Amino acid sequence: MDYKQFQDCIDACYKCAAECDNCATACLKEPDVKMMERCIELDLLCADICRLAAAAMARADEHTVDYVKQICGLCATICDACGEECAQHEAEHCQRCATACKQCAEECRRMSA
Amino acid sequence: MDYKQFQDCIDACYKCAAECDNCATACLKEPDVKMMERCIELDLLCADICRLAAAAMARADEHTVDYVKQICGLCATICDACGEECAQHEAEHCQRCATACKQCAEECRRMSA
Amino acid sequence: MDYKQFQDCIDACYKCAAECDNCATACLKEPDVKMMERCIELDLLCADICRLAAAAMARADEHTVDYVKQICGLCATICDACGEECAQHEAEHCQRCATACKQCAEECRRMSA
Amino acid sequence: MDYKQFQDCIDACYKCAAECDNCATACLKEPDVKMMERCIELDLLCADICRLAAAAMARADEHTVDYVKQICGLCATICDACGEECAQHEAEHCQRCATACKQCAEECRRMSA
Repeated sequence: MDYKQFQDCIDACYKCAAECDNCATACLKEPDVKMMERCIELDLLCADICRLAAAAMARADEHTVDYVKQICGLCATICDACGEECAQHEAEHCQRCATACKQCAEECRRMSA
Repeated sequence: MDYKQFQDCIDACYKCAAECDNCATACLKEPDVKMMERCIELDLLCADICRLAAAAMARADEHTVDYVKQICGLCATICDACGEECAQHEAEHCQRCATACKQCAEECRRMSA
Repeated sequence: MDYKQFQDCIDACYKCAAECDNCATACLKEPDVKMMERCIELDLLCADICRLAAAAMARADEHTVDYVKQICGLCATICDACGEECAQHEAEHCQRCATACKQCAEECRRMSA
Repeated sequence: MDYKQFQDCIDACYKCAAECDNCATACLKEPDVKMMERCIELDLLCADICRLAAAAMARADEHTVDYVKQICGLCATICDACGEECAQHEAEHCQRCATACKQCAEECRRMSA
C-alpha cells in the first residue's frame, strides 16, 4: 500500500489543520471573543483530528486501512461542523478556514467510502 | 462542563497510549518482528487516537461534546482491535497492553453512549 | 530499555496535559477572556508538548533516548512558563493547572539531566 | 502575527511528517527489519515533533513565539538525525524521507534563529 493514494487527502488534512490553528489564535484576538468561542473550540478539535487522520493515512497498511477510513469519516464530520461555524464569521481567517474545512471534508469523505 | 466527569476515561486513554507506545518499541525488538507487524501498526494507531480522545475530553464543552463522544466511540473500536491483537502474543508488554486496551475500550464505550 | 523508568514522568506529563486542556476551555468561559489570552495560548502549547514528551518516553530506546531527553528539557521550560502564567490567576482551574505544570516541570527536568 | 511568515516551515514540517510516517510503515515491510529498527524509531519521533512544530507555528503569537522557536530548533536536530539515518538506506521511501528531513531541518533552523 503506497501512501501516494492518500496524498491529496493528507495534503488537505494538513492544510486544514494549519488554517484551523491559525484561526483559533486569530479568533482569540477578535474584539468580541465570546462570539468566537464555538469557533475556537471547533478549530482546535478539527486541527487535532486532521493531524491524526493525516498521520494514520501516511502509515496505513492492510492491517489498519479499515480503521483509517473510519477516522477519515469522523474527520469529515468534524470538518463540516467547523467549516459551517467559520463560514458564519466575516473575518478573513474564518473564511479561509471555512474553505479549507470544506475541501478537507470532501477529501476525507471520499477516502472513507 | 467540568472535565472531572471525563476523568476516568481520560486516565484510561492516557494509560492505554503509554502501554501501546511501549509495546510498539518492544515488539520491534522481538526476534520475529514480522509476526509483530500488525501489533506494531495497531499500537501506534491506538496510541494516537487515545491521545486525541483524552485531549478532546479534557477540552470538551457544550459546543464540542457530541463530536467528542463520537471520537470516544471510534477510540473504543480501535482499542478493541489493538487489544485483541495484543492478547494473541505471549510477551509481557503485549499482555499488559491488551489489558490497558480492554479497560480503555470499556471507558470509551461508556463515554460515547 | 523499559519504559517503567520513565513512568513517573509520563504520568506527570499526561496529568499536566489534561489540566492544561481543561484550563484552556475554562479560561475561554471566564468573563474577561482578554486577560486569559496568554494563559490559553500557553495551555495549548504546554498540553501538546507534554503529550509529545510522554509518547517519546514511552517509545524510547537506545536509538532515541538522547532526543527524548532534549524533548523533556524543552517540555520543562514550557511547563515553567505555563505554570507561572496560571499561578497569577485565581480561578481554581488555573491554580490546579499551575500545580500540575510545576510537578511536570520537575519530573521533566530530572529526566532531561 | 500572521502565520504566513511561518508558511514555508509549516509546509516543510507537514511534508516531512508524511514522509516519515510512510517510511516507518514501509521499513516494517522490508525483508531485514532489524536493520531498519533505528530508522523506524527516528521516523516516528520525527513525524511527531514535525506535527508539533507545525501546530505551534500556526497558533504562534507574541505570547508563545519564543517557545515556538525553541521547538523549531529541536525539530531541526531530530530531522537531522532522522535524515542522516534514512540516507544510509537505499530504499526509495528512505531516500524520499531523507530529502524531506533535510529540507525541514533547514526551514526549522532558519525559523529558530
